[in-house]
Amino acid sequence: MTTSTPHPETNRITAAVLVIGDEILSGRTKDANIGVIADQLTGIGIDLTEVRIVADVESAIIAALNALRAAYTYVLTTGGIGPTHDDITADSVAKAFGVTIDVDAGAVALMKAYYDQRGIELTPARLRMARIPAGATLIQNSVSSAPGFMLGNVIVMAGVPSIMRVMLEDAIRYLPRGAPVLSRTIEVAHPEGEIALLFAEHARAFPDVAMGSYPQRKDGVLSTQLVLRCSDSARLDTAVAGLSETLARRGLLSPS
Amino acid sequence: MTTSTPHPETNRITAAVLVIGDEILSGRTKDANIGVIADQLTGIGIDLTEVRIVADVESAIIAALNALRAAYTYVLTTGGIGPTHDDITADSVAKAFGVTIDVDAGAVALMKAYYDQRGIELTPARLRMARIPAGATLIQNSVSSAPGFMLGNVIVMAGVPSIMRVMLEDAIRYLPRGAPVLSRTIEVAHPEGEIALLFAEHARAFPDVAMGSYPQRKDGVLSTQLVLRCSDSARLDTAVAGLSETLARRGLLSPS
Repeated sequence: MTTSTPHPETNRITAAVLVIGDEILSGRTKDANIGVIADQLTGIGIDLTEVRIVADVESAIIAALNALRAAYTYVLTTGGIGPTHDDITADSVAKAFGVTIDVDAGAVALMKAYYDQRGIELTPARLRMARIPAGATLIQNSVSSAPGFMLGNVIVMAGVPSIMRVMLEDAIRYLPRGAPVLSRTIEVAHPEGEIALLFAEHARAFPDVAMGSYPQRKDGVLSTQLVLRCSDSARLDTAVAGLSETLARRGLLSPS
Repeated sequence: MTTSTPHPETNRITAAVLVIGDEILSGRTKDANIGVIADQLTGIGIDLTEVRIVADVESAIIAALNALRAAYTYVLTTGGIGPTHDDITADSVAKAFGVTIDVDAGAVALMKAYYDQRGIELTPARLRMARIPAGATLIQNSVSSAPGFMLGNVIVMAGVPSIMRVMLEDAIRYLPRGAPVLSRTIEVAHPEGEIALLFAEHARAFPDVAMGSYPQRKDGVLSTQLVLRCSDSARLDTAVAGLSETLARRGLLSPS
């Protein structure tokens, strides 16, 4: 449904998430979607490279969307596609792409089938949720029927977490699979400050393996998780083995 | 410690949050800081207007930081100030501002006092956490001593939530107070699609009161929370009273 061009510099497929909603920025609602999307994209080998959260303001949505869709292979948005006046995502996306937007017969059919079964009235306000930019493909919503959509490299989803999840499940079928980034964690029974230098040295020796260090505190005792990430499993094995050996030689590995 | 210039268009004090960390983008770690910062800023009348999450990549950090610090009154960053090679926030901030960075005597003193008490060695890796850009003011860390800092309109904090919280508590002392945005919620025992049009009409009549609609689902029953926000309490009262009356007249208010 769209041509996917891997990120030019890295040959990786990249993505950005754009969260749209005053309620996230005011603190009233805590975002529960970013982490879910991150997990799903990582699982199919797409690099989530940037996230932005903006308010329900047309100019802010359009500016962020245009920056992100030019920079990354895909952009996934959440929020602002409900029936009320503050739901302006679909219209903003249409403006960003310079296409028209109107009530879509396919979207109406999906909603009518669902509403008729449940005796819900298709009010003019609800019809607003069937406004879809010209050229977009619908994204299914098995929870409450009003669809999301995909236009070019942009996937537009609801902000309500239960609805976002089913839309993401549908949308992900249209995305290509990249080489999954494999991840291995080494547990070190010492705080970061005691292994940082040898870890940095190791990272320099494997510039193609991403290495991160994450402090842990359990019952007041500091330890560290070293996470190594790479899409080449043989290369990852070599890096993990080398680091484990160095740590073991210095007595720094956690007993396993 | 810095001059605060309210946002030119709105006369409001604005802020952005910049979250720095591969682990958030990969899904390995779920962000727990954005919502906390949003609540705190809203509480002191500062408008959180944008959030970005970027990877531990110098060019990405610098580009985002320069865009945000030019656009908003304040920028608060989280993540990337630990002792390991992937902690590059302080150096990136120094580059963004075009200032030098070096081990700071004040930061070393704070860390040394804490470490000496606990028999922790001030390793070269830990000294890395005392690298502070020239001209910055230290932000206290009562959890583990290694400080954050404020440079110009940028506040740099740790990513570990417990440490971020104490740093935010210290940093917030340096921020001005805006007129707090007051918020009132009206509970409607009907789904959004049935009240959206009258709500939109009401919103048009009060362009200075932000109005948002948030669907709820409890035991399978849909209802709606209408949230009205404004820093002028008399104006907010008028808007809430008018909307409540309209809803009551149509029998749409939740029994209270």
